[in-house]
Amino acid sequence: MKLLKTLAPAVALIALPSLGLAQDAEAAPDVNPYIFTTLLFLIGGFLVFWMAAGFAMLEAGLVRSKNVTMQLTKNIGLFGIAAIMYWLIGFNLMYPGDGWMISGYVGPFFSITSLEPVGLAAADASLDYASVGSDFFFQLMFCATTASIVSGTLAERIKLWPFLIFVAVLTGVIYPIEASWQWGGGWLSEAGFSDFAGSTLVHAAGGWAALAGALILGPRIGKFKDGRTVPMPGSNLALATLGTFILWLGWFGFNGGSQLAMGTVGDVTDVSRIFANTNMAAAAGAVAALILSQALYKKPDLTMTLNGALAGLVSITAEPLAPSLFGALLTGAVGGLIVVVTVPMLDKLKIDDVVGAIPVHLFAGIWGTLAVAFYTGNWGAQVLGIVSIGIFTFVVSAIVWFILKATMGIRVSEEAEINGLDMSELGMEAYPDFTKG
Amino acid sequence: MKLLKTLAPAVALIALPSLGLAQDAEAAPDVNPYIFTTLLFLIGGFLVFWMAAGFAMLEAGLVRSKNVTMQLTKNIGLFGIAAIMYWLIGFNLMYPGDGWMISGYVGPFFSITSLEPVGLAAADASLDYASVGSDFFFQLMFCATTASIVSGTLAERIKLWPFLIFVAVLTGVIYPIEASWQWGGGWLSEAGFSDFAGSTLVHAAGGWAALAGALILGPRIGKFKDGRTVPMPGSNLALATLGTFILWLGWFGFNGGSQLAMGTVGDVTDVSRIFANTNMAAAAGAVAALILSQALYKKPDLTMTLNGALAGLVSITAEPLAPSLFGALLTGAVGGLIVVVTVPMLDKLKIDDVVGAIPVHLFAGIWGTLAVAFYTGNWGAQVLGIVSIGIFTFVVSAIVWFILKATMGIRVSEEAEINGLDMSELGMEAYPDFTKG
Amino acid sequence: MKLLKTLAPAVALIALPSLGLAQDAEAAPDVNPYIFTTLLFLIGGFLVFWMAAGFAMLEAGLVRSKNVTMQLTKNIGLFGIAAIMYWLIGFNLMYPGDGWMISGYVGPFFSITSLEPVGLAAADASLDYASVGSDFFFQLMFCATTASIVSGTLAERIKLWPFLIFVAVLTGVIYPIEASWQWGGGWLSEAGFSDFAGSTLVHAAGGWAALAGALILGPRIGKFKDGRTVPMPGSNLALATLGTFILWLGWFGFNGGSQLAMGTVGDVTDVSRIFANTNMAAAAGAVAALILSQALYKKPDLTMTLNGALAGLVSITAEPLAPSLFGALLTGAVGGLIVVVTVPMLDKLKIDDVVGAIPVHLFAGIWGTLAVAFYTGNWGAQVLGIVSIGIFTFVVSAIVWFILKATMGIRVSEEAEINGLDMSELGMEAYPDFTKG
Repeated sequence: MKLLKTLAPAVALIALPSLGLAQDAEAAPDVNPYIFTTLLFLIGGFLVFWMAAGFAMLEAGLVRSKNVTMQLTKNIGLFGIAAIMYWLIGFNLMYPGDGWMISGYVGPFFSITSLEPVGLAAADASLDYASVGSDFFFQLMFCATTASIVSGTLAERIKLWPFLIFVAVLTGVIYPIEASWQWGGGWLSEAGFSDFAGSTLVHAAGGWAALAGALILGPRIGKFKDGRTVPMPGSNLALATLGTFILWLGWFGFNGGSQLAMGTVGDVTDVSRIFANTNMAAAAGAVAALILSQALYKKPDLTMTLNGALAGLVSITAEPLAPSLFGALLTGAVGGLIVVVTVPMLDKLKIDDVVGAIPVHLFAGIWGTLAVAFYTGNWGAQVLGIVSIGIFTFVVSAIVWFILKATMGIRVSEEAEINGLDMSELGMEAYPDFTKG
Repeated sequence: MKLLKTLAPAVALIALPSLGLAQDAEAAPDVNPYIFTTLLFLIGGFLVFWMAAGFAMLEAGLVRSKNVTMQLTKNIGLFGIAAIMYWLIGFNLMYPGDGWMISGYVGPFFSITSLEPVGLAAADASLDYASVGSDFFFQLMFCATTASIVSGTLAERIKLWPFLIFVAVLTGVIYPIEASWQWGGGWLSEAGFSDFAGSTLVHAAGGWAALAGALILGPRIGKFKDGRTVPMPGSNLALATLGTFILWLGWFGFNGGSQLAMGTVGDVTDVSRIFANTNMAAAAGAVAALILSQALYKKPDLTMTLNGALAGLVSITAEPLAPSLFGALLTGAVGGLIVVVTVPMLDKLKIDDVVGAIPVHLFAGIWGTLAVAFYTGNWGAQVLGIVSIGIFTFVVSAIVWFILKATMGIRVSEEAEINGLDMSELGMEAYPDFTKG
Repeated sequence: MKLLKTLAPAVALIALPSLGLAQDAEAAPDVNPYIFTTLLFLIGGFLVFWMAAGFAMLEAGLVRSKNVTMQLTKNIGLFGIAAIMYWLIGFNLMYPGDGWMISGYVGPFFSITSLEPVGLAAADASLDYASVGSDFFFQLMFCATTASIVSGTLAERIKLWPFLIFVAVLTGVIYPIEASWQWGGGWLSEAGFSDFAGSTLVHAAGGWAALAGALILGPRIGKFKDGRTVPMPGSNLALATLGTFILWLGWFGFNGGSQLAMGTVGDVTDVSRIFANTNMAAAAGAVAALILSQALYKKPDLTMTLNGALAGLVSITAEPLAPSLFGALLTGAVGGLIVVVTVPMLDKLKIDDVVGAIPVHLFAGIWGTLAVAFYTGNWGAQVLGIVSIGIFTFVVSAIVWFILKATMGIRVSEEAEINGLDMSELGMEAYPDFTKG
């Protein structure tokens, strides 16, 4: 710089060609924020996709071996249906502006022009945001997650097709409507409700849908007997642990991607905080559940520990950015404790939740959503969101479950349930070479 | 801007230092496209690597428990050998210009200079592309995928070492040659053939090699008996489902990375479309197979559903960018239907394909490659590519299988097959603590 | 350019507005290197996180079925504790400048200001580096990896809580101190020691801690009998293989992320070389172990092959950047051979290492660290690092193990060990539906 100043008069003309370069720079705006944010959606999206595998493994590990094939079938089926329904109806319902109006909506289906045309140029792009395709991909995965929550609670007794029809309604209509209240710029967001990545919009909503189903479907045969809860241990805890680790990994995308931007120093730094906080909450939830289960039952409980980690994750999801690491630890630890305390509570109420999805996703989701008010101060708005989404999701889900029960029936026969859904409904065992105990 | 214009004369000299900055800018070209595209190869590459685990789990889950250790050994062995052979011979054969000539090829091995020197400067890099190391890493994974396809079909009866020798030839010579016809800038690409990410070059090619092997190796003992096909159910459907989810996840890298560029708005937007379409095709394949298996057999079939998802993925691989989401749905759904229809067809032909790799990778691969012509209009070029690669891969594979059969033998003894390859060939059970049924 | 030069006098004033743009550019420095490097830490970090799942699956697969629940509990517990201890003490101890002093450390815990404030602006960021949050996230995962190594060796006989207390000391104090000698800018780094991603700092250190534990804890009942080693085969080789593939995948983050920068052409190109070399070393380790086990025992050995891949990964970790692909192949292959040779050696010494973690992480770690001297020429510094970290980690670990043994005891009762830790300590089987052989 110093050198240049002294040479300034001399270089005036020589330097002029570089003016041309500066003009080029003017013609070529900075496309990098667009690329970074799109990349965030793609990475976040594939990580949240991976959570579908996590739910499948967790649930397959926590059901008895006679129902594993069915649980796997439900999980891959529900993801396929969610992907189709969210495209067919959900995304448009949730983000009317983005889906329907942006670019020549054609007929009842997303046309090619609903995503960006092949060969999009910088001049055509909204350079402070990201590609619609990446956004759709990312949001779809959240919708599918909501459905995955339901399948665990209702395992080992619900029929396949009524369950999948419920999933179609949940992912095509129920979730998109309630989520649009907040993320579609709806009335809840205007009321000051805050739910960063979906403790309520995704997790509690899934939990409410599951609870409605559990009440209408009833518990498994023999689960509650003479005032006692009969343990029905999961058939493969290695799978359940794998599922938990998969969900933990996917959650970095779930929460980190929900920053919705990565193209500035501030945004990528926030994504980093979110990653660190998300991990801390999960760790704290696992450790808290491990210690509390040791204290209460004198024996550490692996499934409680796994669900504790998941509850920690659900808890931090409503606000993974604002807390310090210590705040994230507290938020997650409380989530873990909630699971250990509420799992037996559900048993007392004779609500049969096979994998503990209601404590993990609904109860910890409510806690996490409430805890946001420690940072925003707006307790009223948080309660409003929790209650309104709870009532809507629970009531509409219950109506759908009732209709399904009244029309096609939702429960397998007593004989099929006792023999296991795998042989009676599918004719295919998950582990045919191993003798059952 | 407005302010500056009025001040222009006054700031002329003051502003001159910033000319220096502009000159710096000239010296420092935009390196970001290079970084973005390299990053695409790295992320895409590790996702496709992950598919090796997916194939291992899918195949280990679909063989009987007495052959699981062998199937796992084959899968990790084949990846190791593919990685070495593609480096030793394959990459150079496939991209002669990139591998051999770029930068001081030394002796029979890739020298250090074949990848970029440590500390590469912007001035030395081709800034509109990516690092050779990332490209090699990415392409290697495609080569290994081709080999993974073969191991599933030939499971439960082929000897380990002849199989691995075949893999060495396939990954070192056969795949690189046929892939070079298209991706190495060869005659097929000049003939107008189009195969975006390898429905034919990778998947059908693997399927042809598997078919050749299956015909020469023959079916498992007892598989076809008195004109009837004897079911030999897989030992662990949870693993098979996990493998399918892994493959689905990895496929985002497989197809998305094949855009081969991420440094512009257009490219990253195209990658996003590819992600969304790839997911849609998989979902549609799964749902189509689930519904068709229900319709045909009155019972939903999990393994058909898993293979349906994979067939959807294979189908969209030849053209994941051009279709609308609805087009991707149709492409994938047809793939899923093909699987349900052709699996029993192979049985009738007494071709024993243990995991269904031929329907999934060969038949759906042909469908996907043909379907490209809906977008390009060039049916002739698509047929040319399918047929030429089919004949080449099948014939050369058959020759190699025949030589192996004639020299060292490719099939285990009858006794070993009946007792299971794990104990007879390896002396190591996969699940030693569980009683076999 | 040419055109502009001839027009130069005429455009002088017209071009002046673009001077303003150049000034804007001066005000807005290039934030992309900061974003790229932060992204490298985030991607690298979630990949290394995934290794925790890999260790859990590998170890759950290699223990007998009666100890699987306990092994899973240990693995999720140790990760939770590592995450908390590294935050509470470790990170500050390892990087005193970054953790304690940067930004208003408050009390005994990381305050909110220890990570970046929400909404960090470009002006506040160190633009040639990355966010502290991403760095913390990334480094934490290395600390947890060290603990994961220990759990495998001591499986099937150690009590849960003493093990977790050891983990707390290891991750809060021991690892951070020895790692600070090199990565915290300590005396070893000044002495010229070189350990790129932690062959010694992470892997050998974990191995030394495991060795100390194994010596003090003693072998499993019945493992060494009448001068003979009794095989105790792992209960689920499919899980063990999955764990190996997970670790292999995670290692791309482990080594690639250790480049610690991705914002220049040189850095991203180096990351690419690291990916390619890491993969080659793993492949070579697997193939070498497969071939050597065939040669020595006349039967290929899957667990040797898995450990061979891991040993290849550990070996290349000390220097994944400098070697050519052929160099990486040699380094990894030697690692694989070391495993096959040293596993029986440990048996002869009656050191009971359930999963082979000492050969893989300690012996191959020493080899990989030594091999760096082929590139640096500084053998003395490499030996100094290996020995000093070895003595420190082994001695301090041994002291901690002794204290734990003397106070609360570290070993379960004989009866508990024979019946299996799952039922005796946890009251929960991992596979309750399957009859044990």
